[in-house]
Amino acid sequence: MTIPASVPSGRKSPTKAELQVWRAFIETSEQVRNAVAARLQEDSGLSTGDYTVLLALSEHPEQRIRSSQLATDIAWERSRLSHHLGRMERRGLIHRDAVAGDSRGAEVVLTAAGAQLFRAGSPPHLHAVQDVFVRALSPSQLAAVDDAMRSLSAHLER
Amino acid sequence: MTIPASVPSGRKSPTKAELQVWRAFIETSEQVRNAVAARLQEDSGLSTGDYTVLLALSEHPEQRIRSSQLATDIAWERSRLSHHLGRMERRGLIHRDAVAGDSRGAEVVLTAAGAQLFRAGSPPHLHAVQDVFVRALSPSQLAAVDDAMRSLSAHLER
Repeated sequence: MTIPASVPSGRKSPTKAELQVWRAFIETSEQVRNAVAARLQEDSGLSTGDYTVLLALSEHPEQRIRSSQLATDIAWERSRLSHHLGRMERRGLIHRDAVAGDSRGAEVVLTAAGAQLFRAGSPPHLHAVQDVFVRALSPSQLAAVDDAMRSLSAHLER
Repeated sequence: MTIPASVPSGRKSPTKAELQVWRAFIETSEQVRNAVAARLQEDSGLSTGDYTVLLALSEHPEQRIRSSQLATDIAWERSRLSHHLGRMERRGLIHRDAVAGDSRGAEVVLTAAGAQLFRAGSPPHLHAVQDVFVRALSPSQLAAVDDAMRSLSAHLER
């Protein structure tokens, strides 16, 4: 394999300043996510993954959803989701129903215990979001983040 | 355990609009990260974790760093980093030197093979950052993201 000494012409690369924004975005979003996750774990014994799955389920009619749709909704790879659901199922927070005629699919269903733990975890989670994220930003900064996320998301869908 | 029926008074929770910005931030940053990671994996066989570690090492004098410092720099939990370094060491991308007088610490050192793979992976990675992130945002949006990330980061350090 030949390693190019420089970026091939005709393909744009970020400027140094743009790259710094990229790194700030990736690193800060990870740090913010970790900070809220640590609070959630400490306050309610739920991991962010648990909470993400419980939140998605709680928002669906009848609190059940196809695992393939769940993977898309929360932007997880299917293998990661499958392992995580296995752990949550053993803890009694969800269960999985096979879907007739589809050997690969299953419906994920919120249990009463899962719903209760989600309700108990929600207030401390919301306080953590307030303390770590909302309080750090002015209203105009929040609006700017919202605007940028919409642009990124629309661009990704193209 | 008593589950509060509502948020205790005196503790603020995000408004619905603020919560939507929070979710957009967390979900979009994950999707953007995944999109760049998929490109990096396809183009150079490096995972984002590999690239993060190689980048951090390549930026340190003599391309070596204490594993505890590395964990702080890249905002990973030490156990996650330790497992990942084990896999990278088996692939010959880094090696770990025990530090005299410190049974828990080790210095992580970039190997020649690791440095070469990092150099080969950098141009495709930069193109992916350009395509997925920079092209999606106007210059003023990029500046606004930078500004918001600085505020979040400063707030986290407090």
